[in-house]
Amino acid sequence: MRIVHCFLVLMLSVSTITLSAQPQRGSRNQTPPPYVAPVYPDGTTATENNIPGYGYPRLDAQNRAYFSIEAPQVQKMVVDICNKKYDMNRDDKGVWTVTTDPLVVGFHYYFLEADGFRVSDPAVYTYFGCSRDASGIDVPEGAAGDYYSIRNVAHGQVRECVYYSEVSKKFRRIYVYTPAEYEKNISEKYPVLYLQHGMGEDQTGWSKQGRMQYIMDNLIAEKKAEPMIVVMESGDVEASFGPGSGSIEEYGAALTKIMINDLIPYIDNTFRTLTDRDHRAMAGLSWGGRQTFQTVLPNIDKFSYLGTFSGAIFGMDLKTAYNGVFNNPDEFNKKIHYFFMGMGSEENFGAERTVQQLNDMGINAVYYESEGTAHEWLTWRRCLKEFVPHLFKN
Amino acid sequence: MRIVHCFLVLMLSVSTITLSAQPQRGSRNQTPPPYVAPVYPDGTTATENNIPGYGYPRLDAQNRAYFSIEAPQVQKMVVDICNKKYDMNRDDKGVWTVTTDPLVVGFHYYFLEADGFRVSDPAVYTYFGCSRDASGIDVPEGAAGDYYSIRNVAHGQVRECVYYSEVSKKFRRIYVYTPAEYEKNISEKYPVLYLQHGMGEDQTGWSKQGRMQYIMDNLIAEKKAEPMIVVMESGDVEASFGPGSGSIEEYGAALTKIMINDLIPYIDNTFRTLTDRDHRAMAGLSWGGRQTFQTVLPNIDKFSYLGTFSGAIFGMDLKTAYNGVFNNPDEFNKKIHYFFMGMGSEENFGAERTVQQLNDMGINAVYYESEGTAHEWLTWRRCLKEFVPHLFKN
Repeated sequence: MRIVHCFLVLMLSVSTITLSAQPQRGSRNQTPPPYVAPVYPDGTTATENNIPGYGYPRLDAQNRAYFSIEAPQVQKMVVDICNKKYDMNRDDKGVWTVTTDPLVVGFHYYFLEADGFRVSDPAVYTYFGCSRDASGIDVPEGAAGDYYSIRNVAHGQVRECVYYSEVSKKFRRIYVYTPAEYEKNISEKYPVLYLQHGMGEDQTGWSKQGRMQYIMDNLIAEKKAEPMIVVMESGDVEASFGPGSGSIEEYGAALTKIMINDLIPYIDNTFRTLTDRDHRAMAGLSWGGRQTFQTVLPNIDKFSYLGTFSGAIFGMDLKTAYNGVFNNPDEFNKKIHYFFMGMGSEENFGAERTVQQLNDMGINAVYYESEGTAHEWLTWRRCLKEFVPHLFKN
Repeated sequence: MRIVHCFLVLMLSVSTITLSAQPQRGSRNQTPPPYVAPVYPDGTTATENNIPGYGYPRLDAQNRAYFSIEAPQVQKMVVDICNKKYDMNRDDKGVWTVTTDPLVVGFHYYFLEADGFRVSDPAVYTYFGCSRDASGIDVPEGAAGDYYSIRNVAHGQVRECVYYSEVSKKFRRIYVYTPAEYEKNISEKYPVLYLQHGMGEDQTGWSKQGRMQYIMDNLIAEKKAEPMIVVMESGDVEASFGPGSGSIEEYGAALTKIMINDLIPYIDNTFRTLTDRDHRAMAGLSWGGRQTFQTVLPNIDKFSYLGTFSGAIFGMDLKTAYNGVFNNPDEFNKKIHYFFMGMGSEENFGAERTVQQLNDMGINAVYYESEGTAHEWLTWRRCLKEFVPHLFKN
C-alpha cells in the first residue's frame, strides 16, 4: 500500500481533478492510468485493526498473519510478534513480505524493526502499551469471542472525564463506563468497579485493547452482570519501571492515595453511585493487580470485592502482608464478598499457587485459568467476563 | 531514550530485582551501574505530547524542536515537520539528532523517515490524521492558548457511543460531548452541534488534536457559549481520496443520509436534546466543511446554523449550487441564523472569496481569518472558538 500523504496534498490533487474535468487550451488529452485493484493471497482477510484503505496485514484461516510493506531503501525489516522475530523478504520493487506461524487467538501487540529501529506499523491503529503507541492485531476466535463483540444489545457509554487531584496536584483524565440504562433511569444509583491496566499501559487500555464496554454491555444485556459503573484511571504506570524510576515499592503506589482522597469522592459527586463498601469493587491486570492489593487490602472499610488478572503479586509473605490482613479468615471472608485471581495457562504469574496458599489459610480466594493464553489481553477479557458476574449481587 | 520493552520482560526484571534483594548463596555482591540522569540542552522542555519517560522531542523558547533518536543501524533519518524535511545527524553511538527552525504555534502532525520508511516517532502519542496514527507536536502559544487548556472550571464529558446505522448496515462509534451541567440538570434539554473533521482524520480528531472539550468547557464557563451537546461522527473519510475511491462526488457524501436517517434520530432518542431546527447546527473542517454544505444546504428544514473551517468548497457555482439555495437571500438569511466560513491567513482555501461572493448575492455569510496559521488544527481551534458563541442565542 503506497504511503498516503497528508490531506493538504490531496486537496490540491482534488482541485486539480476538478479543474481538469475541462480540457485545457493547448494541452493534449491525458487520462490517468487505470486503477488496478490489488490482488491479495487467497483465503486471507484484512485484520480488524487495519486503518481503512490498508489491505495488509491479513490473516488466513490458520491464523497466520501476512505482512506486506513498501520500504525500498530499508536494508532489513523484521516483524516482532508473539515472542518471535520474523525476517521479512524484499522483492525488486522494494516491497517486504512475510507470513507468520499460526498465531494464538486474541489481541497481540507487535512491532516492526526497520534497520533495527523499533516502530509501529503505519497500516494499523495504535494501542497504548509497552510504554508507547504500539501496533496491535486481533486474531479472531469466532463465536468464542462474541462476548467482546459489538452486538445488537443496548450499549453503554465510555466517558472521558477530567478531575483535579490534590494528591498529584494536577488535572487527571479518566474513562468511566456507564451502563446503557444509566441515561434513562435517572433516579437509580449504581455500584462502581475501579478497573486498572498493566505496566506500560494507560487508562485507554481497557476500552481499546480490552473491549470492556462490549463485555459489560453483553453481560448486562444477558442479565449475567449487574448494571454498574466502571472507572479506569491512569495509575501512573505508562513509563515502565526501570533506571531512574525510584523504588519498586513506590512505583504506581500513589494510586491508592489518589483514589481514596480524590478519585472516589469525584466519582461519587459526579455520578449517581451507591457509596457504601458493599457497592465498591476494584480489579486490575498485571501491575494493576498489585495496585488492587495495595489499595483494597489496607482499605477493606471501603471495598468489598477485589480481582487480580495475571496480577503482579510477587515477593509477598501472605502471613504478614498488609498488616496481617489474611490472618483472620472468618472476618476477611465476611467482609470480602468475592476475591478472584485469574491467569493464563501459558504464563506463570503465580496466581494458582497464591490462591492455594490463601485457601490453606482459610481465605475464600477463587482461581480462574484462561486456557491457552499467556500474559495478554485475551486472558484479561476472559478474566473480566468471569469476575464481573460475581459483583454486587448480595 | 532507550527503547522500552514490553512489560513482560520488565516483570521478569522486577521479580529478579525482588529476589536479588537477598544475597544469593555463592554469588558475589554485584550492584547495578548507578543511574545517570540524562542531560538536556539548556532552555528546552519536553513537549506535552511526549509519552511519559521520553525526554525528547523538546522545544526551546524560540519554538525550535529538538529531536534525539537512537537508531544505530539506520543509514538516513529525516524529520518531516511543518512542510520541511530535516536530515538528522548521527553520532558514533548511533543517536540521531537535529534541531528544527522555529515552528509556528499550534498542533503539527509530523513523521520520521527511517531509510525512507515513513513512520511515527515512538516518543510521542499518536493522533489519527494523514490516514494513519501519526505523530503530533503542540507548540504552545502561552496565554493565547488558554481557551483550549484544561482550566479550573466545570468540565464536560466526551462520551464514546455506539449506534446502528441502517444506511451503512453497521455499528458506528461516535463521540458526544456533553456540557458539565448535563449530569445534574436532568430536566434540561440541550441544542446540538454536529462537528466534523477533515480528510484522513476521524471522529477522535476534534477531542484529541482539536481539544474541543476544553474549548467548550471554557467558553461555557465564561458564559460566552450556550451549553450544548456536540456530536462527532466518522463521516468515512479516514482513507484519503485517491485511486480506487470512486468519484469525488461520492467521497464522504453518505454522511448526509447517515445523519438524517440514523444519527440524528439516535442522538435525539439517547440524549436530552432540543429537536427543532433552531437548535441544531453543523460545522466541519476541510472536507468536513464540504460535508457540512452537503448536509445542511439541502436540509435547511433541519438545521439553522452552519460553519466551515478551511472548508473544501471547490468548484462550486454558488448560483446553482444545492438547487439554487443561495438565490433567495431574504429567505435564506431568515432561516440560517449564522453562516460562518473561517480559514488561516497562511493557506488558500478560498473562504474569503466565497464569502465575498455570497455577500454580493445578499447572503449573510461571515468570514473569519486566523492570523499566522495554515491548514492546521490551531486554525480550527480558533474557528470553533469564534463560531460557537454565535449558536443558539436567539
